[in-house]
Amino acid sequence: MSTKHLTWHTPQVTKLQRARLKAQKPAILWFTGLSGSGKSTIANAVEAELVTRGHHTYLLDGDNIRLGLNRGLGFSDRDRVENIRRIGEVGKLFVDAGMIVLSAFISPFQADREQVRGVVEQGEFIEVFVDTPLAICEARDPKGLYRKARSGEIPNFTGISSPYEAPTTPEIWLRGEQMSLEELVASVLSYLEERGYLVGEV
Amino acid sequence: MSTKHLTWHTPQVTKLQRARLKAQKPAILWFTGLSGSGKSTIANAVEAELVTRGHHTYLLDGDNIRLGLNRGLGFSDRDRVENIRRIGEVGKLFVDAGMIVLSAFISPFQADREQVRGVVEQGEFIEVFVDTPLAICEARDPKGLYRKARSGEIPNFTGISSPYEAPTTPEIWLRGEQMSLEELVASVLSYLEERGYLVGEV
Repeated sequence: MSTKHLTWHTPQVTKLQRARLKAQKPAILWFTGLSGSGKSTIANAVEAELVTRGHHTYLLDGDNIRLGLNRGLGFSDRDRVENIRRIGEVGKLFVDAGMIVLSAFISPFQADREQVRGVVEQGEFIEVFVDTPLAICEARDPKGLYRKARSGEIPNFTGISSPYEAPTTPEIWLRGEQMSLEELVASVLSYLEERGYLVGEV
Repeated sequence: MSTKHLTWHTPQVTKLQRARLKAQKPAILWFTGLSGSGKSTIANAVEAELVTRGHHTYLLDGDNIRLGLNRGLGFSDRDRVENIRRIGEVGKLFVDAGMIVLSAFISPFQADREQVRGVVEQGEFIEVFVDTPLAICEARDPKGLYRKARSGEIPNFTGISSPYEAPTTPEIWLRGEQMSLEELVASVLSYLEERGYLVGEV
């Protein structure tokens, strides 16, 4: 009896099989932009539209990452790098699972974003720059963070006391203050459609 | 124009919606057992069967975790705890995404496994104990690790120089040496079917 275990065949499910089952081409939609730029709002709305169309998605954001996987990481340079690195690695796992995964983090440093781009395959990393001017983000200030940053209560705040390195060649460039939410969502969906992410054949 | 952004409505996609789209009840199938017990082989075969039936799955194992998300973690007690903690948190994200996620790690400590059970909801953590006697695992020794552990080349090796705390009340108890792979897979699938993980209504 015991020898039969030596001949066990292990069927491996592949990324292609998982993606075919979902009728989509998996990718990471990486939303980057200042605090208050609208990243999370737009990403949520894009996800909702994708799900309405029957696509398989997941959204990584502060709510499900900061208190879970990345609990214990702070805001030092080293921790910020590790924060983005882990999000990228989780994104890669979701892509491997065949999903369209959306992430919404400020991710201010070009090098960190390029590191994430490097862990997935060509065409699987879609950088979405939510380009809303600082003045507008600061005027919105939905969580009162800019006020605290200006008063010095929050140190190293992106856009105020820490740099935001804007993407120079993002796959999708959204002018957050010039379009309605519906228009912004439509432009992301158009990108995905035109490049074949949403068709059944992968 | 700028005020319209203040009334942006954010549609939130819920776990229930994601799961409904997949016609399944999401969960983590947490395979635990000694090195060489057959965890990974059985988990791969269960995943293949689930995918054949149209289910949406993902498998977390050493291949996609150790060199990615958990790169940099070693085998100290502290690092082992963190290793399992992160796998549990990623499992939770996949459950939230509506997936049936399988994990195959020795995970020798009861407390670590209970910690993972605690981060998901009731019924979402399914402990699968691959109960293959040490003597059989050591005789198989597919990677030559037991030989190295016996010679002292590998310290703190589970079952040899580090304890394996067997689950006392696992949801699924597999006698790895008494059944064929097909029978083992069938018993996992039966568990999932009987408890409603594989039906369309969630």
